[in-house]
Amino acid sequence: MAEGWVTLATNETYCVGALVLANSLKRVATRGQLAILITPDVSQLMRRRLQEAFDVVEVVDVLDSQDSAHLALLARPELGITFTKIHAWKLTQFKTAVFLDADTLVVQNCDELFDKEELSAVSDPGWPDCFNSGVFVFKPSENTYNDLIGFATNKGSFDGGDQGLLNSYFSNWQYSDISKHLSFIYNMASSASYFYRPAYKEFGGNVKIVHFIGSPKPWQQNFSVAGQHQSEHLQLWWTLFFRYVQPQLSEDMEEVVCNR
Amino acid sequence: MAEGWVTLATNETYCVGALVLANSLKRVATRGQLAILITPDVSQLMRRRLQEAFDVVEVVDVLDSQDSAHLALLARPELGITFTKIHAWKLTQFKTAVFLDADTLVVQNCDELFDKEELSAVSDPGWPDCFNSGVFVFKPSENTYNDLIGFATNKGSFDGGDQGLLNSYFSNWQYSDISKHLSFIYNMASSASYFYRPAYKEFGGNVKIVHFIGSPKPWQQNFSVAGQHQSEHLQLWWTLFFRYVQPQLSEDMEEVVCNR
Ligand SMILES: O=c1ccn([C@@H]2O[C@H](COP(=O)(O)OP(=O)(O)O)[C@@H](O)[C@H]2O)c(=O)[nH]1
Ligand SMILES: O=c1ccn([C@@H]2O[C@H](COP(=O)(O)OP(=O)(O)O)[C@@H](O)[C@H]2O)c(=O)[nH]1
Ligand SMILES: [Mn+2]
Ligand SMILES: [Mn+2]
Repeated sequence: MAEGWVTLATNETYCVGALVLANSLKRVATRGQLAILITPDVSQLMRRRLQEAFDVVEVVDVLDSQDSAHLALLARPELGITFTKIHAWKLTQFKTAVFLDADTLVVQNCDELFDKEELSAVSDPGWPDCFNSGVFVFKPSENTYNDLIGFATNKGSFDGGDQGLLNSYFSNWQYSDISKHLSFIYNMASSASYFYRPAYKEFGGNVKIVHFIGSPKPWQQNFSVAGQHQSEHLQLWWTLFFRYVQPQLSEDMEEVVCNR
Repeated sequence: MAEGWVTLATNETYCVGALVLANSLKRVATRGQLAILITPDVSQLMRRRLQEAFDVVEVVDVLDSQDSAHLALLARPELGITFTKIHAWKLTQFKTAVFLDADTLVVQNCDELFDKEELSAVSDPGWPDCFNSGVFVFKPSENTYNDLIGFATNKGSFDGGDQGLLNSYFSNWQYSDISKHLSFIYNMASSASYFYRPAYKEFGGNVKIVHFIGSPKPWQQNFSVAGQHQSEHLQLWWTLFFRYVQPQLSEDMEEVVCNR
């Protein structure tokens, strides 16, 4: 059974992030398939671009669905994007999958993640007892999906988003199995190079996935083609954008990123 | 055999931090003994205050010592404070000990740490594959002490301090035993309440040790007796300072903290 990388984009801007992410995965010659969950808002033009870059483009319309998520969302409208992310568990064509936020960038091949168990993830730098939900290994399953929807409806999420929900649901992550604690190299917060520079100098060369947590996102940071970004990872993001993504975008699609 | 809390202060300012820390430990009625390592610079007046608050006050003069640290320090003068911290392993009157930075504050009894193995510690928020060396459980031992000095001399420290050294020496911490990964409640960075507020709201009530990592330190933050600090932990630090520490300080010792 197949292995897949799954991301999510509910608007045009995050779609651009997802396109750069997809190209970063191709650059490192992954063996996994590429899947993206989108919402109905995403334009037809953008969907064509996504179809060229991803093996699977799944439109997730929770409000139009026939399943438990529909009812749950009526009761808890604030969990809209969260329910969309949970939809990843429905991609049962994958035996093992890795979820990646659209603001992540793969800088080295890390197909070894497909050998990990559910739920494997990296400590959140803000509160290391929790895992960061921008990168996690999971096993798609209709049962887990329904269970997660039920859990979200009853308990909600302590941070109002998917990270709070997933940490409460997989609450044994903290204590139970160290092999499910992935190294920071699989979800390095891009700010880490500032917060603990010596560790970045020592271990930064091992980094495989960079996560542009918080703001500004790469596409919100002015880029001058001539200049060099201080961060090599931001530089790589823009290099992939200019080489593979921008040539495919129509003029008004380009406006969602702030290059000039 | 006894159990002990061990801290370190190489100057008058950190001694004030250590005095507040000692009082925070007494406030929660710990069963452990209190020990402090100081360097020869610390004034005689301050030593008397420390002797009242701590069971053990140990002057660590690495330059004057007869052991391996002396030679090592001649070769690597930049590791001065680091060698002082390592000296904690020489307190072999303790079967188990917990090292606490002088900028930590114990807010709830956590004597259960004495049941932990060497080396138990909390993830560093800046680079969670490493532990933060502001709080760690260890087993005093002359052998380990000598081994650490040798390691420091040969390999140095990737961050120039004790955290880099201890992480390289106890490098199996990351992968080997999840019971040595202490919860963030035993070394909560005081900045965490800003970085991930919902997690702080959800889990902050469980916090047992707060660590004022980086700057400003509590004693560098202007305090007005009338006003309230936004942070309850900073408030507790100043409450303990005014109640137990300030009345014992001479006027020129007071100058090291910025209260007015
Ligand atoms: O309006 C939004 C917000 C988020 N996302 C998706 O949800 C992820 C998590 O949000 P974000 O990365 O902005 O949060 P952070 O990692 O900064 O906490 C994004 O990467 C996207 O995949 C989205 O599609 N639309
Ligand atoms: O000049 C110094 C610097 C540090 N320390 C001791 O070393 C610890 C670590 O330094 P600090 O807490 O300032 O570093 P941070 O936790 O902010 O990285 C302090 O808490 C003190 O116990 C000291 O005695 N004198
Ligand atoms: Mn993200
Ligand atoms: Mn400290």
